[in-house]
Amino acid sequence: MTDRPGEDELIARYFAPLAGPAGLGLKDDVALLKPPAGRDLVVTTDALVAGVHFFADDPPGAIARKALRVNLSDLAAKGAEPIGFALNLALPGDWTADWLAGFAAGLGDDAAAYRCPLIGGDTVRTPGPLTLAITAIGAVEPGRFAARGGVRSGDRLYVTGTVGDSALGLRLRLGQGPALADADRLQLLDRYLLPQPRLALAPAIARFASAGMDISDGFVGDLTKMLRVSGVTATIEMSRLPLSPAASAAIGADPSLFPVAASGGDDYELIVATPASAAAAFEAAAAEAGVAVTPIGEAVAGAAAPRFVDHEGRPFKFGRGSFSHF
Amino acid sequence: MTDRPGEDELIARYFAPLAGPAGLGLKDDVALLKPPAGRDLVVTTDALVAGVHFFADDPPGAIARKALRVNLSDLAAKGAEPIGFALNLALPGDWTADWLAGFAAGLGDDAAAYRCPLIGGDTVRTPGPLTLAITAIGAVEPGRFAARGGVRSGDRLYVTGTVGDSALGLRLRLGQGPALADADRLQLLDRYLLPQPRLALAPAIARFASAGMDISDGFVGDLTKMLRVSGVTATIEMSRLPLSPAASAAIGADPSLFPVAASGGDDYELIVATPASAAAAFEAAAAEAGVAVTPIGEAVAGAAAPRFVDHEGRPFKFGRGSFSHF
Repeated sequence: MTDRPGEDELIARYFAPLAGPAGLGLKDDVALLKPPAGRDLVVTTDALVAGVHFFADDPPGAIARKALRVNLSDLAAKGAEPIGFALNLALPGDWTADWLAGFAAGLGDDAAAYRCPLIGGDTVRTPGPLTLAITAIGAVEPGRFAARGGVRSGDRLYVTGTVGDSALGLRLRLGQGPALADADRLQLLDRYLLPQPRLALAPAIARFASAGMDISDGFVGDLTKMLRVSGVTATIEMSRLPLSPAASAAIGADPSLFPVAASGGDDYELIVATPASAAAAFEAAAAEAGVAVTPIGEAVAGAAAPRFVDHEGRPFKFGRGSFSHF
Repeated sequence: MTDRPGEDELIARYFAPLAGPAGLGLKDDVALLKPPAGRDLVVTTDALVAGVHFFADDPPGAIARKALRVNLSDLAAKGAEPIGFALNLALPGDWTADWLAGFAAGLGDDAAAYRCPLIGGDTVRTPGPLTLAITAIGAVEPGRFAARGGVRSGDRLYVTGTVGDSALGLRLRLGQGPALADADRLQLLDRYLLPQPRLALAPAIARFASAGMDISDGFVGDLTKMLRVSGVTATIEMSRLPLSPAASAAIGADPSLFPVAASGGDDYELIVATPASAAAAFEAAAAEAGVAVTPIGEAVAGAAAPRFVDHEGRPFKFGRGSFSHF
């Protein structure tokens, strides 16, 4: 059993080194957290299943990082700063000590990089696929939380980074994409493997945004959802969507991939709304934080679904709908 | 699709009615929690997998209740009062609307009964077995948290309720137990199906206990763990273990079931240590709270594993070791 420790030894060996003070050395069943005084807490949780949200043969460190990052992305969208996270890990029977060491190393690197220590968790076995759930807790000043439903008529709408890289990376991962230069191919594959949570933008969101949401199920579907919950609508000119050079190369080689980029999941970029009066300050703060933000339209009154149009104002033609993790 | 809604409709239909104010109507990706002023937070998370922690054909409401209750049991052991919980639900392909309605109804009943509202979650599909993870958050006064490692030499050791009912119920569920009167049989089966979190005892634990732990992996194994982490030991006379009439009947019919009761998992009773000076007050507070507590021994200095002895002081003979969920 030396390379297959029991649960307690597994926790002590691989996970206790990642624990922050609230984790009590992972020697208790619970975490004890002193919440920062005068702050609200933001709690988010996301589950990932092998074969659904990632490939079972992805590097274990990347699986761990993705599981943490999709939760950090939610905190960023709300303007919250991470405090810590709990991990549920359901391991299939064929796990190895090497696999778990790689998993813990990736998780530890990200926990340190994003200042979000492990505070607790649970490890169980499963006869099914590897399944992870992470619950992350963040803090935000009262009144600064960027709700999904906070978009108001007249607000400017922004998207961070570039859209569609991950969906295109997934196509490549499935052997379905066009031929691309190695650098472009690797960049898209990497964006699918490893989301980039936009935590650097969280302070600007807390300060200036009226609403925030991260893109997990695709730009088109998630923007539609955000505007519907907010009770507003918009006309979005699709040619304004920010694309990476790699995505542009893929779409140049196969234009039918543009709707995939616009609707595909796993971007983990943010959609942010700001009052028009705060737009310039938000853009300056984003530049200061080193996060690209692209204005993509303006919210207007109305309960209709947003209109997605081409550069001549005609309805944009989608190949298929928004990706859903469910 | 009327009886198989998508994720958003599923959440709106089944889970939004269970959400507390922090859940934002489950219309956001996150919960926004105002932590009670001047309290520490206790965070606990437990995952349950069909076929490992419960039977896939258990009533859906009971599966939901068990998932919540095993977490509430951890809060109780720490002297914490529940604030809310997040649910991760990985559904296999064959779920039905009826199943989910039953699941949500059970969850909602317990959320109300234990004053622990749903604050968020995530629903995904899985090609594997039904898998749930619940993360519960509670509050405790600073300095009142009952750590697992807090047992001190001289402390009195208590166990709540009765030990072993659940392990015996599991035997019966597997068709392995002795013939019993219907009432006894049903009581043991019910204790396996539905843990009874001892939240009523949490205020007494916060006030008087030096340490607390819930029994998930069996009395013997969990007490051993608690004393080891605390750096103390004890001699436990096994005849002092509180048994229910139903467990006594089962053990009377088959004495080899006594070690099963003492070592088997899923009790979700609590082991509590108090300073000797607080023992009388703790017992009075427990009586006031309506939770039976039985003194089972005294912690003494020493790093050795606790001794489990029979009524003549001889080493107790175990059939097999502590159950492990891992």
